[in-house]
Amino acid sequence: MPAIARYSLSLSAVCAMPADRLPRLRLALAESGLDGLVLIPGSNLRYLTGFTPMLSKRVVLAVFPAADRPPALALPRLEAPGVRAHLGEAVTYHPWDDATGPDAAVEAALRQAGLTGTVTLGVEFAAMRVQDLRALERAAAALGGRVDVRDATQLIGRMRMVKDADELAAMEAAARVVEEALQRTIEQIAVGKTERELAAFCANAILAAGAEGLSFDAFVATGPNTANPHHEPGDRPVQAGDLVMIDCGAVVGGYASDITRTVAVGDPGEDARRIYDVVRAANAAGKRAVHPGATGEAIDRATRAVIEEAGYGPYFVHRTGHGLGMETFPCHEYPDIVQGSTDPLPVGTTFTIEPGIYLEGVGGVRIEDDVVVTPDGHRSLTHFPRDLMVLTP
Amino acid sequence: MPAIARYSLSLSAVCAMPADRLPRLRLALAESGLDGLVLIPGSNLRYLTGFTPMLSKRVVLAVFPAADRPPALALPRLEAPGVRAHLGEAVTYHPWDDATGPDAAVEAALRQAGLTGTVTLGVEFAAMRVQDLRALERAAAALGGRVDVRDATQLIGRMRMVKDADELAAMEAAARVVEEALQRTIEQIAVGKTERELAAFCANAILAAGAEGLSFDAFVATGPNTANPHHEPGDRPVQAGDLVMIDCGAVVGGYASDITRTVAVGDPGEDARRIYDVVRAANAAGKRAVHPGATGEAIDRATRAVIEEAGYGPYFVHRTGHGLGMETFPCHEYPDIVQGSTDPLPVGTTFTIEPGIYLEGVGGVRIEDDVVVTPDGHRSLTHFPRDLMVLTP
Repeated sequence: MPAIARYSLSLSAVCAMPADRLPRLRLALAESGLDGLVLIPGSNLRYLTGFTPMLSKRVVLAVFPAADRPPALALPRLEAPGVRAHLGEAVTYHPWDDATGPDAAVEAALRQAGLTGTVTLGVEFAAMRVQDLRALERAAAALGGRVDVRDATQLIGRMRMVKDADELAAMEAAARVVEEALQRTIEQIAVGKTERELAAFCANAILAAGAEGLSFDAFVATGPNTANPHHEPGDRPVQAGDLVMIDCGAVVGGYASDITRTVAVGDPGEDARRIYDVVRAANAAGKRAVHPGATGEAIDRATRAVIEEAGYGPYFVHRTGHGLGMETFPCHEYPDIVQGSTDPLPVGTTFTIEPGIYLEGVGGVRIEDDVVVTPDGHRSLTHFPRDLMVLTP
Repeated sequence: MPAIARYSLSLSAVCAMPADRLPRLRLALAESGLDGLVLIPGSNLRYLTGFTPMLSKRVVLAVFPAADRPPALALPRLEAPGVRAHLGEAVTYHPWDDATGPDAAVEAALRQAGLTGTVTLGVEFAAMRVQDLRALERAAAALGGRVDVRDATQLIGRMRMVKDADELAAMEAAARVVEEALQRTIEQIAVGKTERELAAFCANAILAAGAEGLSFDAFVATGPNTANPHHEPGDRPVQAGDLVMIDCGAVVGGYASDITRTVAVGDPGEDARRIYDVVRAANAAGKRAVHPGATGEAIDRATRAVIEEAGYGPYFVHRTGHGLGMETFPCHEYPDIVQGSTDPLPVGTTFTIEPGIYLEGVGGVRIEDDVVVTPDGHRSLTHFPRDLMVLTP
């Protein structure tokens, strides 16, 4: 393929700049004692502005001041028209050329944002690269100051975990799409169909149902393979008596769904029926534990208690769930639904509840729903039936 | 999907630690005045050791001292067994736990590598993240010193651009595989077949021919769409008189091929035939310009001269080629075959030569080969015929 400088437009860019996010960000920055936030391209930038360029080896820095000024964007000149087409005049543009490098543009962006002198800036420690940091440091020095960077991963993660009405609408749509595809995939299950065939069908069904993408590669495990929660779909054909586990998700309007159901093909046996009932009860107990102010740890404890009381504690080998929104596996969003997750969860927080039991020689069961915290407790975004479906082999 | 800590084994890990790369690295480090190199997971780490863990949010740092000592690896404890299974005792392991964090492990790795006190270390500015840099800085401070980091992107890029016999064998195999798939794809071209269908067929044919992966998504453009060098394959069906451009690549043994051919379905017209001849001559001129010590700039000039002399200069809108090896589009390897690329290219350097002309209203032609610098000049790794193939519509 030839290498051509070109506009790097994100296909998922659909929204105008969301109105309330910058005020919320400014508040969070002020509370954290930060003078501003500096992002590289990625979902955090898309969250705050409604659009992100693609990440490349060229420096793109978006400067969000804590003060009430517009964000300032230092970016390669070739990308400026494409970004401006999405963001218009809501941000200021500070383009740079390969011939001169990014320094003057980053300096101009900091100056425009009022961040001269010595400043404390939040950045994403797990994303920003040394070249971006160095560009920021050189610009601050050129402005006669110094930049002290702090990790802002939590700050913006906590903002993003609480969804607004538009985000929830996208997530509901993503849930509808994946449930339609799940239904169609279950209808395809028959003795002789392989995991790989079913996974491919599921992926196509998600796209056919209107998704702009998959949350992650569709997962299908059959029979003994269901005992491995991260099995890679392979050539094993469905056999009578199998459990079949399907874990899949759709992206709609930039937001993801994520659902798992486990069905049986003919009678899966008494042990499998028993773990199914336990997991179903654990899923329900987890949801009952969701209310404003609940912690991820408490919700995890609620599902785990059901499984432990039934004697299967050691076979629930993963956390109860993870945050859900713009990020898809494996970059899960806040909050973690796991021991040690002690932040109280506000109304609007979205996450999965997906207890599972994985038993060598019997098989595995996982039942996963997407939920949002509501003033009354919770609402499940996924409604697919949770009774054990026993398909005729 | 549930989040589970698990071994992150790269599927492309096949080779034992390559024998001569560490000595070459030590020499390059010494020449650059660096005390060592520190890498995060990625293809540079795989190049030096034969294996890389996957990149995650957990800190993995591989420390390569300039002195004759083994590399030292700080990594999450859960990943250690999987990495050790590949690298054995060729490196030292310094595992860390989530409960305590990576600092003591990074400190132990630096100490093991003899990098105490104030040290100058090469790192990848376009890859290493702030969290990795900070971990390194804290470890150096704990050892009573300080770390001064320099960008080692060029240093290791120049090492990697010169391939050894094993690497060339993998690249020849990758060329054979993609040529088989290209042949089969061309046989599929027929009036009514869409770009998307042909691209999907090509991708499957590459895998069926024995590739472990695609170098990039197979590219197919038809008719007027060939005038856009980065067209996205769509639903346009092939029509009589079309040019059809196919750009595709296979990964074999961790190394990539990358080839483009443009064919005609029935008579494409005189203008199309003319640009075909010009591009074919430019491709040949580029290859003739390859010899030990030639520069990327000179090779670019050679192809461009042919196209400019024919009056199509403004329609050759991209560089002549890019380095080829472990990296696939868009992270091209050294060297760039473009104006400003002034490093003399040694024997064993591999890159593409892919001139093109893109003419609105007529269509586009690109002919791409993969070449290696030899003592005599060059050898093309791709042998697919370059005469205009005119298919019966």
